[in-house]
Amino acid sequence: MKTLPQSANRLIQEFSNLPGIGKKTAQRLTFHILQTEKEKVSELSKALLRLKEVILNCSICNGITEEKVCSICKDPTRDDNKICVVENTFDIIVFEKTNGFNGKYHVLGGTLSPLDGIGPEELNIKGLLDRIEDEIEVILATNSNVEGETTALYLKKILSNRKIHISRLARGIPIGSDLGYIDSATLIRAMEGRTSV
Amino acid sequence: MKTLPQSANRLIQEFSNLPGIGKKTAQRLTFHILQTEKEKVSELSKALLRLKEVILNCSICNGITEEKVCSICKDPTRDDNKICVVENTFDIIVFEKTNGFNGKYHVLGGTLSPLDGIGPEELNIKGLLDRIEDEIEVILATNSNVEGETTALYLKKILSNRKIHISRLARGIPIGSDLGYIDSATLIRAMEGRTSV
Repeated sequence: MKTLPQSANRLIQEFSNLPGIGKKTAQRLTFHILQTEKEKVSELSKALLRLKEVILNCSICNGITEEKVCSICKDPTRDDNKICVVENTFDIIVFEKTNGFNGKYHVLGGTLSPLDGIGPEELNIKGLLDRIEDEIEVILATNSNVEGETTALYLKKILSNRKIHISRLARGIPIGSDLGYIDSATLIRAMEGRTSV
Repeated sequence: MKTLPQSANRLIQEFSNLPGIGKKTAQRLTFHILQTEKEKVSELSKALLRLKEVILNCSICNGITEEKVCSICKDPTRDDNKICVVENTFDIIVFEKTNGFNGKYHVLGGTLSPLDGIGPEELNIKGLLDRIEDEIEVILATNSNVEGETTALYLKKILSNRKIHISRLARGIPIGSDLGYIDSATLIRAMEGRTSV
């Protein structure tokens, strides 16, 4: 917008580059920043830089950490015999929020996607092969879309000669949902995976 | 979240402080920042600081500018005889987007709100009184809520002894809307303000 000072337009542009933030939200955020005390804006600015400075990838699971090994991999109370393989670090947060999994994680850093040039070498699969020991359980928790399923299938294939138990997250009806709104593919999987009561 | 590094939690907190950004969006933005190149994050960080460093209030209209006088007040092609009085700078953008107003603006910096301790002295009303000359038109474009109406009424009162024309934005039915969804108060104003065709 030509009537706005350049510095304001620049921040609007920077905010618009963030995911899920459109032009209008970017303008609103910029005007909020204008009305915010300088010290508070400086805090946000510093937090952005600091994140990029101190975050490392955990040498064991490839998740994020400020040290060599992340807090989950270091935690002696967590079960070493279960490794939940996820696409990215954000998925760890999703599982941790449930408080329902006490094993460890392994972050692939993406999914197989030949069209985008992402093959097994681009993912952290070697790290997974190196850390799994006999008798443990590897839970393939990639997303339930084409790339996620392909990656899970590939991992299952290359892990099948190891003496481990391989599992995949259950597919079925989400809690609290109405059958009338469930798509057929999910319903078929829910029927196939039905459990005795 | 205790399993996240402190620097990540800190940025999530900072993002959550922004308006309209909840915990989940803040997490998503933080993970986006993690995956963004350091140079690009540094750009955002710098744009934030720069905004706070260079933005001033225009000495004429109280809008934002990087110089003493803003680009709108400086523009010789704009009509000096119309001053549109708005609550804040963001409202200027809203009008400018329409490309339908070629006058100048005056930013009050808020609305009268005795409960919040905001009286006439807290607003930029003296600046308005100083700059209006005889025969001009002052358009009261405060919002159409209690505070905005009160402020407009107050301005009308203190401006009534000046030789100027005072107007208020028309109230009526928004373009493209369905009568069935319009509230009664708006409909009454639309009827009262009906125009000959």
